[in-house]
Amino acid sequence: MATIEDVAKLAGLSRSTVSRVINNHPYVTERKKQLVYQAMKELDYYPNSSAQRLRKQRTDTIAVLVPSLTNPFFPFLIEGLEIVAVENGLQLLICQTHQNKTKEYNYLQLLQTKQVDGLIFTSLENDWASIAPFKESGPIIMCNEYRSEATIPVVRLDQVKGSYLGAKHLIENGHKKIAYCGSNKGELGMDRQKGFLAALSESNIEMNSQWIFRDNPSIESGKKILRAILSLEDKPTAIFAGSDEVGAGMIKEAKIHGLNIPEDLAVIGFDDLPVAQLMEPALTTVKQPINEMGQKTMEMMVSMLTNQDKSIKNVVELPIELIKRESV
Amino acid sequence: MATIEDVAKLAGLSRSTVSRVINNHPYVTERKKQLVYQAMKELDYYPNSSAQRLRKQRTDTIAVLVPSLTNPFFPFLIEGLEIVAVENGLQLLICQTHQNKTKEYNYLQLLQTKQVDGLIFTSLENDWASIAPFKESGPIIMCNEYRSEATIPVVRLDQVKGSYLGAKHLIENGHKKIAYCGSNKGELGMDRQKGFLAALSESNIEMNSQWIFRDNPSIESGKKILRAILSLEDKPTAIFAGSDEVGAGMIKEAKIHGLNIPEDLAVIGFDDLPVAQLMEPALTTVKQPINEMGQKTMEMMVSMLTNQDKSIKNVVELPIELIKRESV
Repeated sequence: MATIEDVAKLAGLSRSTVSRVINNHPYVTERKKQLVYQAMKELDYYPNSSAQRLRKQRTDTIAVLVPSLTNPFFPFLIEGLEIVAVENGLQLLICQTHQNKTKEYNYLQLLQTKQVDGLIFTSLENDWASIAPFKESGPIIMCNEYRSEATIPVVRLDQVKGSYLGAKHLIENGHKKIAYCGSNKGELGMDRQKGFLAALSESNIEMNSQWIFRDNPSIESGKKILRAILSLEDKPTAIFAGSDEVGAGMIKEAKIHGLNIPEDLAVIGFDDLPVAQLMEPALTTVKQPINEMGQKTMEMMVSMLTNQDKSIKNVVELPIELIKRESV
Repeated sequence: MATIEDVAKLAGLSRSTVSRVINNHPYVTERKKQLVYQAMKELDYYPNSSAQRLRKQRTDTIAVLVPSLTNPFFPFLIEGLEIVAVENGLQLLICQTHQNKTKEYNYLQLLQTKQVDGLIFTSLENDWASIAPFKESGPIIMCNEYRSEATIPVVRLDQVKGSYLGAKHLIENGHKKIAYCGSNKGELGMDRQKGFLAALSESNIEMNSQWIFRDNPSIESGKKILRAILSLEDKPTAIFAGSDEVGAGMIKEAKIHGLNIPEDLAVIGFDDLPVAQLMEPALTTVKQPINEMGQKTMEMMVSMLTNQDKSIKNVVELPIELIKRESV
């Protein structure tokens, strides 16, 4: 492979001039630039920044894997991550997996090939066993999502408690027929369902399997599920929406169908995103401390990068709380 | 610097076994893995994926620079980009610049150091002159944002027409006192203001400089601006909000202060994001074809990567239209 010296020789310029052109330094004449570019092209030479970065052994870049950015939960989580990243001179590379195992696996190569110093999962598609070997390549943290068997730091919330609080609030408002929306994938999804069912069981309320809905957390899903509920013969009087986006879609769709919220149907969200406050009636919800979770995660990442300790097992659990507004 | 052969020698294993461990292939025993990791550590060896990628001369990765992901406009734009990227086997690296020149410049290094095959700007902080040299490193496209002097392909909307349509609609509804929210940075911001003022001037309406507001496009900004408007002695009867997020924040805040929308105050948004439909009253807005703009941009990127033509100057302008709902 051609070297920078080859380029300098062919261009008839010094090695330092070639370097200045490659690094886009100012005060290089256009003619010299063109000579360098031409020589690089002729020799099929590309500046090997990997070598440069390997010398200092870091990229000051952290990869953040998210399922999708159109769910505002993730942009707000990234905002928290970035506050601490910036304070520590780190930049973020954000990667959407769209819940695809192969994509997630491909993005892991960023860590393995030293294009990033560390990697943060905010959701996980592959089995932990296939992720584990990548620990050798650099620090990995799970944020939001979690797996009991994962031997990496985790920053998470008590999802069982969160959904328990939400369901309990609906029950205390007299509801016995409560629909549930949410995924049952991964421990997060299972824990959330567990907390919901625990609240029902505590009050001897039985769950109707027709009232369980699985879908992605979007406004459109909320509208769709609301229509499905209206088509049921035995309708629930309250809905645990599982996300504010779903809850917002439901409220909008319910009103189009002439329902009064909360009189005809109570709706409780999850997350406490800005849309919850915008709705009319404003959405009662279970607040996740999203920004704080992001900041805490990046603090741990910085500490792992500094201490070079890649083996700590550490679970941080942040508080979760009910925000009462007008939709229950 | 150590090579893969050195690692194989020290580990007492074949080169191909080392390669399999590095590339995380299945069916390598844990013992062999540990031997390889130990040898790599001892020799300070990192798999040089750059070399691998240089061999095939591409990374199949496109960098997308956005100002901020908490403005939903950008996640929806990325969604459009990604549809076409996936169809063509490309992955995206998303980078937030937070309107910071240095950050933007740092992310450009991704292109220069061949960590990505191409780069897309959705906003631009630096002068075109300081971006231009990076064209030598790979295809660059501007999407949404634009600069007349930029000699790269641009996918954009007719911003002058967009704001003209919005202002015209307010004027046709009898308004003469119209506030304007928006940036005056960059050509996009200036064009949008130009279209707004053109509609006013056409109807011989004078602009009151007290009614011009500059802020970032967020729900909180909308609330803040609405409060500022309420504190004015001479109040506008209508607002061109410049974004749906600002418009949504305004509607919410206005209702808290007992105003009826649109009777006491008309509000028109910009973008046509999902939040526009959720509002009560639903937000009249100027629709930007966000998804289409993303798809079109990535189609151009694919074509530039395929044809190796880095010098085409090509402006694609997509249609923009008024969506009448209930807030005017």
